[in-house]
Amino acid sequence: MKISGYAAKSGTTPLGPWEFERREPGAKDVRIQIEFCGICHSDIHTVRDEVDLEERGTPEILATHPTKTVYPVVPGHEIIGRVLEVGSGVAKYKTGDRVGVGVICDSCRTCDSCKEGLENYCEPGSRFTYGSFEEDGVTPTYGGYSTHIVTDEHFVLKIPENLDPAAAAPLLCAGITVYSPLRHIGLSEGQKLAVMGLGGLGHVAVKIGASLGAEVTVFSHSPSKEADAERLGAKDFVLTTKKNSLAPLSNRFDVILDTLSAEHDVLGPLDCIKRDGTMIMVGASPELLKFDTLPLMFGRRSIMGSLIGGMAETQEMLDHCGKNDIVSDIELIDPPQINEAYERIMKGDVKYRFVIDCSKF
Amino acid sequence: MKISGYAAKSGTTPLGPWEFERREPGAKDVRIQIEFCGICHSDIHTVRDEVDLEERGTPEILATHPTKTVYPVVPGHEIIGRVLEVGSGVAKYKTGDRVGVGVICDSCRTCDSCKEGLENYCEPGSRFTYGSFEEDGVTPTYGGYSTHIVTDEHFVLKIPENLDPAAAAPLLCAGITVYSPLRHIGLSEGQKLAVMGLGGLGHVAVKIGASLGAEVTVFSHSPSKEADAERLGAKDFVLTTKKNSLAPLSNRFDVILDTLSAEHDVLGPLDCIKRDGTMIMVGASPELLKFDTLPLMFGRRSIMGSLIGGMAETQEMLDHCGKNDIVSDIELIDPPQINEAYERIMKGDVKYRFVIDCSKF
Repeated sequence: MKISGYAAKSGTTPLGPWEFERREPGAKDVRIQIEFCGICHSDIHTVRDEVDLEERGTPEILATHPTKTVYPVVPGHEIIGRVLEVGSGVAKYKTGDRVGVGVICDSCRTCDSCKEGLENYCEPGSRFTYGSFEEDGVTPTYGGYSTHIVTDEHFVLKIPENLDPAAAAPLLCAGITVYSPLRHIGLSEGQKLAVMGLGGLGHVAVKIGASLGAEVTVFSHSPSKEADAERLGAKDFVLTTKKNSLAPLSNRFDVILDTLSAEHDVLGPLDCIKRDGTMIMVGASPELLKFDTLPLMFGRRSIMGSLIGGMAETQEMLDHCGKNDIVSDIELIDPPQINEAYERIMKGDVKYRFVIDCSKF
Repeated sequence: MKISGYAAKSGTTPLGPWEFERREPGAKDVRIQIEFCGICHSDIHTVRDEVDLEERGTPEILATHPTKTVYPVVPGHEIIGRVLEVGSGVAKYKTGDRVGVGVICDSCRTCDSCKEGLENYCEPGSRFTYGSFEEDGVTPTYGGYSTHIVTDEHFVLKIPENLDPAAAAPLLCAGITVYSPLRHIGLSEGQKLAVMGLGGLGHVAVKIGASLGAEVTVFSHSPSKEADAERLGAKDFVLTTKKNSLAPLSNRFDVILDTLSAEHDVLGPLDCIKRDGTMIMVGASPELLKFDTLPLMFGRRSIMGSLIGGMAETQEMLDHCGKNDIVSDIELIDPPQINEAYERIMKGDVKYRFVIDCSKF
């Protein structure tokens, strides 16, 4: 089936219309008519080939990902749509269901991680919705900047019907990326959570953190975000560009969720964590970050990374968001605005996620 | 009481004989005749004033420590001796008991950390055996390079009589520093532990790790240490200076204990940790270290710091070492050899801890 979408044909040229093929649905596959797709910062990193995987790729990444972006690339892994057709062996979905596809579209399903429901940590490496290879090892996977997608039902999520589908799209990546580590470390009622960066991930983290009962503080370098932080559910706001703004906060937070995906200071925030507390890194910074062993040692603090979430946990997150009416704050755009949206994301000028109307491809 | 010992009078002159006063024992104090004192790498950092606490001190450190070393400084926090005299309120010790004093000589005893037995993480800041101030806030605390010390019984440890006292001295710092985090993260039978650096801390970590049932691998840049690693209980040895030596070890270890206290690479080792595994930092590197968010994210790995241990846990460690006949490998020296020992430590030329015969002061 011929698919219309947008692709980047190199790292330095704008994205534009492109037609490509997808496989016909197999027994376990769901064919989805895409309604909306969010724009994630990773889309830009991939399109511009900004992360040197040759140098920095972990064995899991290198197993399923080319070290350089393969063009044309069709980005997009925050996908919402309706089921058009299901394979003969599909049990979970039927035509017309509102569904989503996130960052992962396949995994080995036999390693310990997969068996524990942590397909995101698949040991041989999970397959990403775009930027990986299909099972044949040569066909690139193409993402959600397009009209249709075909995905194994195990990697398709049920979207609560009460949520606005366009605004729910970013939950598939931004939502699960912040929900998974907060649940994993057991964030609970009354605990103090600081969210670093009020962007696509950060603003969902404030909503989810507050919905889990935590007292949320936002760390931001942008004074203009203070009012929004409060509106989103934060109790406190710290302007990190103000000198010594972090000094009074030493040993204050149980958890700091660092959503920044550019080079930044982690030394000041480390001191703000309580004993045995954790700084969670969910932003893939293109640069190396520097840390000091002293604040880790004094306070037995940890820096932990986390990568999206497993499929069962992603469904749990969506159900939680359905119950708590949590969606992303979005700006809905048409495909021709994608390149301008990329520029605005790079300037931090988006409140808080661009979502593409995929009926316009 | 006049005490003989060795002190550094500046950061650039050799240590030499010095006489000073200690307080008379109060009701809860134990006066100890010091038999042996180990030389820890921190002694050298402090004597040479190498750690910029003005810049890097955490609030806990700054609360009880001068930002610059106060001279004369009498180092030493791996102290073993016999009880000479006890105060009227001392319940745990009597004259003649073999006892030890480690890194901490006091703490607030009222904060949550102290109440949980984690005096090492005392929130207002614990008092260090040397380099802190006494309760008066002006008298420096003087360490174990001396003939006697007076310490509150809560911070005095019982030393199993079956252990060689000179070789047991390093357990008070090196031993508890590696034991505490391994126990905290629950290192257990059959797990895979890598120890980075086979020095004072590392060689004790190999012994303790093996005694806890772990399969221990040593990472070292020194081929000459391979035979020793095996003798100490390691099953495997990785020469990290060999190109790509870590590549085959990806996702192999449950825990990596990083004992290096100089600038070094943590990126390669991070990939060697299994999902949900931990890299424990126990060496206070004078420089900042660089890390990459990608291997933390792929695998939900953590970097955790740990600082010595609480008093109850230190006693538990000593009892464990007593039962398992674990002591440090040492070179026993007389006081005039201290300066030469420092030079040899800086070159990594010690197997594996210098211990001073304190009867010679």
